[in-house]
Formats: sequence, C-alpha cells, structure tokens
Amino acid sequence: MKIYRYEQNPLLTPHDVKPYHEGFEVIGAFNAGITVYQEEIIMLVRIAERPLCDNPNIVKAPVYNSCTSTLEIYEFLKSDSRYDFSDPRVIRKTNQEKWSYLTSLSYLRIARSKDGRHFTMDNEPFIYPSNKLESLGIEDPRITKIEDSYYIYYSAASQVGVGEAMVSTKDFKEIHYHGMIFAPENKDVAIFPELINGRYYALHRPVPCSNASPEIWIAESKNLLHWGNHQHLLGTRTGKWDACRIGGGAVPFRTNKGWLELYHGATEDHRYCMGAVLLDINDPAKVIARSEYPLVEPEEEYETNGFFGGVVFSCGALVEEDVIKMYYGAADTSMACIEMDVKEVLDSLTYY
Amino acid sequence: MKIYRYEQNPLLTPHDVKPYHEGFEVIGAFNAGITVYQEEIIMLVRIAERPLCDNPNIVKAPVYNSCTSTLEIYEFLKSDSRYDFSDPRVIRKTNQEKWSYLTSLSYLRIARSKDGRHFTMDNEPFIYPSNKLESLGIEDPRITKIEDSYYIYYSAASQVGVGEAMVSTKDFKEIHYHGMIFAPENKDVAIFPELINGRYYALHRPVPCSNASPEIWIAESKNLLHWGNHQHLLGTRTGKWDACRIGGGAVPFRTNKGWLELYHGATEDHRYCMGAVLLDINDPAKVIARSEYPLVEPEEEYETNGFFGGVVFSCGALVEEDVIKMYYGAADTSMACIEMDVKEVLDSLTYY
Repeated sequence: MKIYRYEQNPLLTPHDVKPYHEGFEVIGAFNAGITVYQEEIIMLVRIAERPLCDNPNIVKAPVYNSCTSTLEIYEFLKSDSRYDFSDPRVIRKTNQEKWSYLTSLSYLRIARSKDGRHFTMDNEPFIYPSNKLESLGIEDPRITKIEDSYYIYYSAASQVGVGEAMVSTKDFKEIHYHGMIFAPENKDVAIFPELINGRYYALHRPVPCSNASPEIWIAESKNLLHWGNHQHLLGTRTGKWDACRIGGGAVPFRTNKGWLELYHGATEDHRYCMGAVLLDINDPAKVIARSEYPLVEPEEEYETNGFFGGVVFSCGALVEEDVIKMYYGAADTSMACIEMDVKEVLDSLTYY
Repeated sequence: MKIYRYEQNPLLTPHDVKPYHEGFEVIGAFNAGITVYQEEIIMLVRIAERPLCDNPNIVKAPVYNSCTSTLEIYEFLKSDSRYDFSDPRVIRKTNQEKWSYLTSLSYLRIARSKDGRHFTMDNEPFIYPSNKLESLGIEDPRITKIEDSYYIYYSAASQVGVGEAMVSTKDFKEIHYHGMIFAPENKDVAIFPELINGRYYALHRPVPCSNASPEIWIAESKNLLHWGNHQHLLGTRTGKWDACRIGGGAVPFRTNKGWLELYHGATEDHRYCMGAVLLDINDPAKVIARSEYPLVEPEEEYETNGFFGGVVFSCGALVEEDVIKMYYGAADTSMACIEMDVKEVLDSLTYY
C-alpha cells in the first residue's frame, strides 16, 4: 500500500512555537485534532511546556491552581529519596508504580493553514486548564463537527486521575465547557460525527487497573454529554503491532464499506503505530475488518527520535474524495501528515 | 454514638444457602442490596460459589461462556509456574499485579423477610451472568427505587475489566437489562432515589491506574442510562480510617440536613469500616460534613473472621422514621444488620 509523507514533514515542531509561559520552554507540539473552519484548516495542537531550570539538582513540576487561576511550580530536590525522577516525564513517589506529578504542562493551541502543509501558530492558548480536574494539563484533543458545532474533547489530567473532558465551539472563539464526559481512567475518545439510529456513539479507551488491558470500548449517548451502554469493541493481539495497548485515533469517517477508524497500537517496548478498524455502518459496535499490520510505522527521523521516540499517534484526519490526510504526532514532539488512499486502506484490511 | 447490632447477626451465612451449581460450595452470602417490595424486605444477596476440588494439586476457575450460556471450569495445575496462586481469591500470571481469573463465581439471589431479621433464601438466582461483560461474575448490588421501578446495579466482572451494569424490575420477576452504565474500572455505584433539579445523580468509584487513588466521584444523568459531568467528590485521608480506598455504600437518603451517604473506607492493611458523608440537598456534588472516625468497625467475630476478615461493607440501608437499619456484608462471608439513630449519626459528623 502506498503512503505519502509530506515533504514538508514535520509540519510543526517545538521550535516553531513561542512559549506561552515566561521561563518555560516548548518541548512538544504534537497530537493535534484537525478540522476545517471557514476554509481554513485548523490544527488544535497539544503544546507541552516545561519550566526552565538552571539548577541541575532540582526537578520542577507545573501545577495549575484552579482556586487562584495561576500556574504554580513545585520544586523537588533530585536528592530527595522520597521521590523517583528516573522517568523524565513524571515524578513518582519512591517504589510506586503510579506517578504523582508531570514535569511539563500541556494545553491546546491553534495552528492555521490554507494548504494543510504550512501552518501558522496562534500566539495564545485556545483551551487552557480551567478547573481542578485539569490541574496537571490537557492533552490529545479530537474534534468532531456535528451540524454547526465543533465538539472538542481531550484528556484532562489532575491529581485525582486522567479522564476525558469536552468543550464545544461554533466559531473557534467562544467555548462552552461541558465537563468530564468519561471518568478516569480514560483517554483517546473519538465521537462519531452523526447520529446512528438515533444515537451518538463514541470510542473510548478505559485503563482497567485490577485486570485487563487498555483497549477500545464503544459507548452511546442521546446528547453527547451523558454516555452509557459501554461495550468492549477491540482487544490487543499478542505478537502483533497492537499487542500491548490500543486506543482510538482519528475521528471515524464514513466509507462505502463502513465506518473507518484509524487507531493506534503499541507493543510492549512502546512502539506506537497506526492501523485501521472497519465498523458496521449501522451498528458501529460490530467489527468488520482490521489491520493485521500497521498502516504507518515510525520510520522517519522525526518519528523515531524526539521526546519519546518511536511514536506515530493520530488524533485526526481530513478525508477529501478518496484521500485520507492523516495528521499525527511524531515522537511525542512534532506534527506531521501522511496521505493514504481510502480504497487501498480498505483493501489492506483483514475481513472477519 | 449508640449502635445496635441485631442479636440474630449474622442474619445469613453461606451455611444457609444451597449451592445453585452442582459440584460447588457456597463460600459467601454477603454485600446485599436491600429494599422493600409489597411489604416484604428483599435482600438481594451476592452469592459466591466455588467449584469443589478433591485434588490438592489443582486450582479451578469458573468462567461463564456467554456464547454457549454455560459455566465452564478452567483447571490449573498448582505446579504451573506461569501462574501465581498465592491469593486464594484470584489467579495471576506470574509476576503480574493484575489478576487473570477469579476462583469463585458470584451472582445475585433474593432472600426475603417480614421482620428484617429472619430471611428465607430463594432457590434460584435472581440475576445471573448473562453476557460477555459478566463472564467472571456479578457482585455487590445496590437497589434504588424510583417511582414504581427498582433499578438494580452491580459490578460486572470479565476478562476485559470490571464495570457497573444495571437492570430494572417492577415486580422482582421480570428484569430488563440496560447494559454497562459505568465503564471499567468502576464499582460501588449508588444512584440517588429522585431527580434533583431535573437531573439524576450517582456516586461511583473509578479506579485510576496511572495515578490517583480509588475515591468517590459523582455523575449526573437525564435518563439513568447515560452518565456524564463526572466530578471528584470525596478523597482518601492519610492516617485516618479511610486512608487507602473509599467507595459508595448504601443508597443515599434524605435527612433534614442533606443527603446522607453511608460509605466504606479501608486502610492500607485492608480493614474496611463504614462511615458517613453528608451532601447538599440541592447540589449533592457539595460535601457538607464527614465522619472523622468510623461509625461501624469490624469487631464481632463474624466481622473479623471469614473469607476476607476485618470487613464491614454496606450496599444498602432501610430508613424508618429516625432509625437507619444498615445491612452489611461481614468479612466477605455473611450478612448482618446494625441500627443507628439518624440524628446521632448527623451529630457525629465533622462539618466543614
């Protein structure tokens, strides 16, 4: 199957983004949701900023305080044996699996383009942590357009867990906050763009703690705000590219064979690839076909090297005629785009 | 504060229950939901049955197969080093935190009483695993009566995780299945018995995996089937009786000071006690007061010794005039009941 990486890749890197916070550096501009508004391509980018630190004995953790509406910076001594700083992304209490703090704060910022290849970044955040469920940042947005509203949902991280929150906008200026729509621990939600038999559907990715793996579930709703009838949709597969964890990626879109969902899968050594699953057009809880092999693997330098190398991770695609333009985060650092032919993707799948 | 344990305690033990499955033994009759239907007190009891095994080298795990509607029994050799059998309740893969199988199957069975002290157990299950999300059993029901319907919800365990499913009945004969209302990992749901400002509310207890503790959240719904606006309600407290994990217990009930919720808390050494939290009558997402000390602790022999000793765990209470009759599972083995005075409980709380 042919895949075409834009020669402009990476389309956006941390170097293209001026930090919003004084005294911070941008370490990631990645995992963006994508849509079109008024003939402009809108890339809603996760920007990760880290406090600068000139003291090598100190590790900093930014925490948004929703009572004072300010960003506080907690400082930890590297010599403090109560904490484990071995993973540069997080701070753990010593001998605990769970993390306590993140070393960067993520928020969402718009980059705009006419051609889908050259993007200009807004100067201000578009969605910034705003309540206590977002104290450790907001990540990995997807955008579903339904009628004249754009529903934007993202991982909301805080000290009480990571769940999925939603806002909506009609003009990419004013936003309405709809609260947390999937309780912790959940990520990688992808809401279908239309009612199916009178119901909205969403893919979601709970992370069971006591047993089971992070896998893709499907839920239904009457109003996009309240979700139920959770069903397990798609599991991991031992020995394959999606052996260890999977999650929804791009917002599902219609094809003549069913709903096509581009999803991510990771192996035990954290190599993230993109593949596809085809769902019944009238009953998206029914799986029709699936990628035996990944469609897109981390191969280019900007995909294999970065803040977290070996990752291609899509949060959205534009589909024009028979071409999928899949935008994706590369190496948890930058944004890139790849084109694939719808028919070739459908032909590449293994049908059950 | 006075608490009155029934002199008939324990009201129901495994010895009072004939196994439903041939070749099984009943190891638990506990964690029952409670309600009144046609002047009869209905205790919906979690019955745990374990396959008998005369070979000491074998461990058995019952798994409900929803395709064939039969209960299968998997057999493991104790000498199989791929598995860890050290916890008698579960089977783990070696060196994994997560469990893979349970060694007993739970389902729900009705015990009936006129006086609330002497119960007669039905011969058949009332709710039995019926789909692939219930393959490892169903546990810990609560019952909320709204108008003429009884909503019964319970933990549904399967190899893809543990979530909360719901059924409803009007006559305790016919049941309607409403699917999984809270996705994994979630337990200890308690649905408020009336609309509050046009919305239904439920307490729930997600188990975040990457960070955070198992704590009490609150969600809202328009139709009891689909839930959203998840908010963190109540956290654990270091050094106290509810330091390690907490979860909803009895269905909340009205008092003149607010909604009273009897909830469970556990310490790091798995000692489960019951305490209370008082929530605003018009906005149950607002905490007014809370127990500094447990109301009920495992003290009696039937509470301290059993399949899992040191546990008092309520899934339901009856409130008559100013008396709370709190039914509770004791030591993950039996059912008991305790009476407390509403006013004394309210007076015992620490107000914020």
